[in-house]
Amino acid sequence: MSANTFGTVFRLTTFGESHGTALGGIIDGCPAGLVIDMDFIQQELNRRRPGQSEMTTPRDESDTIEVLSGVFEGRSTGAPIAFEIRNRDHHSFDYDHLRTAYRPSHADYTYDSKYGFRDYRGGGRSSARETLSRVAGGAVAKLLLQHYSIQVKAYVSSIGEVSVGNEFAIDQLGFIEDSPVRCPDRDASAKMVELITRLKQEGDTCGGIISCIISGVPPGLGEPVFDKLQADLAKAAMSINTAKGFEYGEGFRAPSMRGSTHNDIFIGDGQGEIKTRTNHSGGIQGGISNGNDIVFRVAFKPIATIKQSQPSVNNKGENIVLEAKGRHDVCVVPRAVPIVEAMAALVIADHLLRNRSSRV
Amino acid sequence: MSANTFGTVFRLTTFGESHGTALGGIIDGCPAGLVIDMDFIQQELNRRRPGQSEMTTPRDESDTIEVLSGVFEGRSTGAPIAFEIRNRDHHSFDYDHLRTAYRPSHADYTYDSKYGFRDYRGGGRSSARETLSRVAGGAVAKLLLQHYSIQVKAYVSSIGEVSVGNEFAIDQLGFIEDSPVRCPDRDASAKMVELITRLKQEGDTCGGIISCIISGVPPGLGEPVFDKLQADLAKAAMSINTAKGFEYGEGFRAPSMRGSTHNDIFIGDGQGEIKTRTNHSGGIQGGISNGNDIVFRVAFKPIATIKQSQPSVNNKGENIVLEAKGRHDVCVVPRAVPIVEAMAALVIADHLLRNRSSRV
Amino acid sequence: MSANTFGTVFRLTTFGESHGTALGGIIDGCPAGLVIDMDFIQQELNRRRPGQSEMTTPRDESDTIEVLSGVFEGRSTGAPIAFEIRNRDHHSFDYDHLRTAYRPSHADYTYDSKYGFRDYRGGGRSSARETLSRVAGGAVAKLLLQHYSIQVKAYVSSIGEVSVGNEFAIDQLGFIEDSPVRCPDRDASAKMVELITRLKQEGDTCGGIISCIISGVPPGLGEPVFDKLQADLAKAAMSINTAKGFEYGEGFRAPSMRGSTHNDIFIGDGQGEIKTRTNHSGGIQGGISNGNDIVFRVAFKPIATIKQSQPSVNNKGENIVLEAKGRHDVCVVPRAVPIVEAMAALVIADHLLRNRSSRV
Amino acid sequence: MSANTFGTVFRLTTFGESHGTALGGIIDGCPAGLVIDMDFIQQELNRRRPGQSEMTTPRDESDTIEVLSGVFEGRSTGAPIAFEIRNRDHHSFDYDHLRTAYRPSHADYTYDSKYGFRDYRGGGRSSARETLSRVAGGAVAKLLLQHYSIQVKAYVSSIGEVSVGNEFAIDQLGFIEDSPVRCPDRDASAKMVELITRLKQEGDTCGGIISCIISGVPPGLGEPVFDKLQADLAKAAMSINTAKGFEYGEGFRAPSMRGSTHNDIFIGDGQGEIKTRTNHSGGIQGGISNGNDIVFRVAFKPIATIKQSQPSVNNKGENIVLEAKGRHDVCVVPRAVPIVEAMAALVIADHLLRNRSSRV
Repeated sequence: MSANTFGTVFRLTTFGESHGTALGGIIDGCPAGLVIDMDFIQQELNRRRPGQSEMTTPRDESDTIEVLSGVFEGRSTGAPIAFEIRNRDHHSFDYDHLRTAYRPSHADYTYDSKYGFRDYRGGGRSSARETLSRVAGGAVAKLLLQHYSIQVKAYVSSIGEVSVGNEFAIDQLGFIEDSPVRCPDRDASAKMVELITRLKQEGDTCGGIISCIISGVPPGLGEPVFDKLQADLAKAAMSINTAKGFEYGEGFRAPSMRGSTHNDIFIGDGQGEIKTRTNHSGGIQGGISNGNDIVFRVAFKPIATIKQSQPSVNNKGENIVLEAKGRHDVCVVPRAVPIVEAMAALVIADHLLRNRSSRV
Repeated sequence: MSANTFGTVFRLTTFGESHGTALGGIIDGCPAGLVIDMDFIQQELNRRRPGQSEMTTPRDESDTIEVLSGVFEGRSTGAPIAFEIRNRDHHSFDYDHLRTAYRPSHADYTYDSKYGFRDYRGGGRSSARETLSRVAGGAVAKLLLQHYSIQVKAYVSSIGEVSVGNEFAIDQLGFIEDSPVRCPDRDASAKMVELITRLKQEGDTCGGIISCIISGVPPGLGEPVFDKLQADLAKAAMSINTAKGFEYGEGFRAPSMRGSTHNDIFIGDGQGEIKTRTNHSGGIQGGISNGNDIVFRVAFKPIATIKQSQPSVNNKGENIVLEAKGRHDVCVVPRAVPIVEAMAALVIADHLLRNRSSRV
Repeated sequence: MSANTFGTVFRLTTFGESHGTALGGIIDGCPAGLVIDMDFIQQELNRRRPGQSEMTTPRDESDTIEVLSGVFEGRSTGAPIAFEIRNRDHHSFDYDHLRTAYRPSHADYTYDSKYGFRDYRGGGRSSARETLSRVAGGAVAKLLLQHYSIQVKAYVSSIGEVSVGNEFAIDQLGFIEDSPVRCPDRDASAKMVELITRLKQEGDTCGGIISCIISGVPPGLGEPVFDKLQADLAKAAMSINTAKGFEYGEGFRAPSMRGSTHNDIFIGDGQGEIKTRTNHSGGIQGGISNGNDIVFRVAFKPIATIKQSQPSVNNKGENIVLEAKGRHDVCVVPRAVPIVEAMAALVIADHLLRNRSSRV
Repeated sequence: MSANTFGTVFRLTTFGESHGTALGGIIDGCPAGLVIDMDFIQQELNRRRPGQSEMTTPRDESDTIEVLSGVFEGRSTGAPIAFEIRNRDHHSFDYDHLRTAYRPSHADYTYDSKYGFRDYRGGGRSSARETLSRVAGGAVAKLLLQHYSIQVKAYVSSIGEVSVGNEFAIDQLGFIEDSPVRCPDRDASAKMVELITRLKQEGDTCGGIISCIISGVPPGLGEPVFDKLQADLAKAAMSINTAKGFEYGEGFRAPSMRGSTHNDIFIGDGQGEIKTRTNHSGGIQGGISNGNDIVFRVAFKPIATIKQSQPSVNNKGENIVLEAKGRHDVCVVPRAVPIVEAMAALVIADHLLRNRSSRV
């Protein structure tokens, strides 16, 4: 069983609680000889750090990664790569009022149901801070993919009821890191900022949608039955906190299309090279990559912590009132962009290696 | 690596091609002492069989299951339960024209890319016939769940552009097996039949959406990080042929909701029993079941085989024309209902057993 | 969990009871394009079949294998290869007296302890007949190894107190299949036959030792820590019924050797080729193959079923007397030779594929 | 694939090199609610630390463990328990001469064959220092076992040609920690010390044998086919550096015994309690524990680093001479006692949890 491990050949096992000593993980199965660019990994972590813009909370964490093993003279050795990020800010807030309280739509009640008690400080293991380890692991996966000229890029396509006008290609995403909401559409970006500002005043939250594109994937990745590429991407995406939906290619638009429209017609260039006219399939057919861009979208719900008092219960089933306390994001979706990329990179890296045993 | 295995404790490993000798599988990890109701298992297989109504194709297969091991005097022994369904109808059609042709939006091209060649008869391993083994495995999982009073039911909520008016509760699904499209809404059902009849004349296909409800799940199932219950359900659903999207709870509607609306407020009954006023979360919080109904939806694309000739290429990249041949469904979504149920049952059965080691 | 699955990339999952409908398995992860020589596979099964010589019991089973999937036009397709061997002889004996009895040093009591009841006919899942599936799976593994010029050969080096005079090299094993006890030493072979004949008269049994040599393994197979090549070979060997000990290289002789004697000194041929003067290490250093022959030995206990009446208990703890009934082997070690080879082949095939992801 | 992970439900994943930043691991699958006695864990680490007696080398490492996650208010939370031990002594020695040299019977050549290069400082990942993480993980497993009154104890039964006179029972092992070689037989202990002292002067090394007893194991642990309890114990033991052989029960003595002697006769006490007269089986029948003490032995070769100059080759295949340098043990077997215990504890803890799903 692999509750805290993701992947089969390229495997990430993570640990850590929001207010524990450290978070981190072990990457097992990274091939030897890969140049491990520590600056790149730290940069990826910085992308998911809180406090990057006025749109997100200012938890004061440097989130500095330390690699403990598996790298020698700048390259992976084939041994497990362990890393950790020490928590520093974890005494700054008093969580005692949450010891027995169950916050609505959080994991408090379900953790207690499962384990009998819980580390209630900052959400413990259920905190979104857990995704630090995913981003670090995903950064190493990205280095492996870059070695094979595969790119993974995500962007915010909706926040609340504001959406981008059209889908973007991977080479149109230059603007993203300049947008405070990581949206490549300047108009939509401005409206998203406006919405977040308004909700902040109202003490409310909203969700959003992230689109992800993976380009350069060779045909042949993915396993035909249970480990279809889209199945593993769906699991990867849906394992992120607050994700509520996953679709690839035409997704939920596909049911009302006709087969004659949805089919991606093959065209040969006469030299043996095979392409498709369209990419309704989203880069995957029969669970296996076909060489086109892989395109998927993930829907996130509004986060549950709002700046309004709410009725709730405690662990004895008694009615209580939860007062709004502390600092919280209106919308974490922009910060989830590097997380979605990380999870996608982990999936593709794993299937890249798995595919090495597909033929004699 | 587990390309053809699903699950961690309750594990299903499947085999078989559309036109090979047999399809089947091995269930490993079924606890000893479970009454194995063979009639129920056969009945589940019958539900996915083609030719059940005018809405589906008449491939003449009895799909009779034989259990080869693991059951003694009517009960599971703890040993692996192997089963097989022999193919009978597999010489009735000539697939030679598909030996080198790549059908659009099928797995022909990607299989060749991956393996170098393929069993092209009826789609080989990529055929939807592969789901027979899932339904058989899922039937045993359902028997285990029934032992613990857990129920899994799915229904068709959309076909093409026709949708049900509202969501249904699990005890409102009595009508389903009477509807030729497995839709509990009589009006919608009639319109769906109408749409399929029209598309049959046009030689075209359409997709649909299946909703699934799991009731009676105790709080505590699911693992907090990568193996969140929704992540495993998403993988399960997205591993089904032609699935393009997955959502649970409010799904893709969640992004535009507000936290103050989406939160499921807890209420105590004063006796220690804890409920929620609403179920926007879809029965899962923090990756772990909370005791409410688990509700998810799966979007399916139109199937790629249409009764119209289409341009395509062969394995040398040469342009060819694919003529429409043989018998094919307009919409397989009604037949996918037992498959969705089976995959959901496998996930819940697995987590039910996994959860046995959550506490000392 | 993988109770009935062996291997990580090249995986064998087995099923079947001694007196059930069939035994068999699924090989998942066999690379596509391998020529599947069915005659070879059947021949391997014949090697473990009872009744091959007067030294073994005459259970009348043809043990004919049928492959159900994963092979197309004579080659593996990358899809799971399922196979089965139907039981035919299973109604010929009455096992009712074993329903409640616990035979000494059998699995009756422990199965009941674990599962609450058991399939008592012929030992059910605990029967050595289960190894049929191992031999079939191992035969496919051997085909893969032969493709890469790797050979696996085992022989009987001891039966009871009779042992071969010296160790044999893989090219000295020609005589084996002519010896009724699969022993390459003609003198020892004759004495072993004598011992077995005598014990048959006494109604008693004895054990033996099998030596196994794997040649042609390239340097680099094996994983450095938990999945050391010798660790996986040990598990493979010790999972065979009645195995009591495993050693490789100098094995239990090593503790009393000196480091200065045990060390295998490297020698270069001046052209960059590196060899060792000796092979005390048994072909593995640091858990990884070094290119030398891999040499290991497995000790088997005398089988528990003897032709003498024995005191025992039933499942209520009451004292009973077990009468000797039916036909049984004096020594199954000769028949275990193909089983040891099969398990070794499965380990090496798996590590051969695993090693494909060791470097970028 | 699980190269650096051990176990299926109770899982230990380790990392770290001899001269890297830190060693450590993640325990995933420890049930919630277990009291985590940090003093006990540190004490176990101290038992394997070098420099405990004159018999072992004085590498100056405090080997202080820090737990980073998964424990809250002194109890396991169900979240992964990560731990690390920082290396401190790792700049004290110059390993540059080993950059290109291949030491005989070390992992230098095989690592280079596998990975293309290696971290050569102190053996890198192949160093016995890697077992620190096993002992830490095993200590948590022992805490779990103690919760269920299961005890794991090992002792040195041979060093070089000196052996104990008889086997010891678990309650006779009080003297062990007083013996500089962890041998419960005072006479043998003295002779072992004598032998080691002599070999130290000769600059040579020797191996030894460790016996291990596990008592209190309930009947029913172990899986019947590939994951037999003895198979998993064999893998566990044989994955330890320098282990060359494994046997349980009568082991390599069993082949020459008769079935009539080897069989463990059951006896009932009239009250339904079932025992056996003897324990030739070593506590396991049919791969499943029978309630008796589990008894196994592990043979270790002499360590390869000797205080004598040896001929060898470098990575170009050129002949070199390796001069004896630095400090090294004559015999590491006494320090391997806690490692053997740790690996045994990991196996039993895993099977204890696995067995929770054996029955409905």
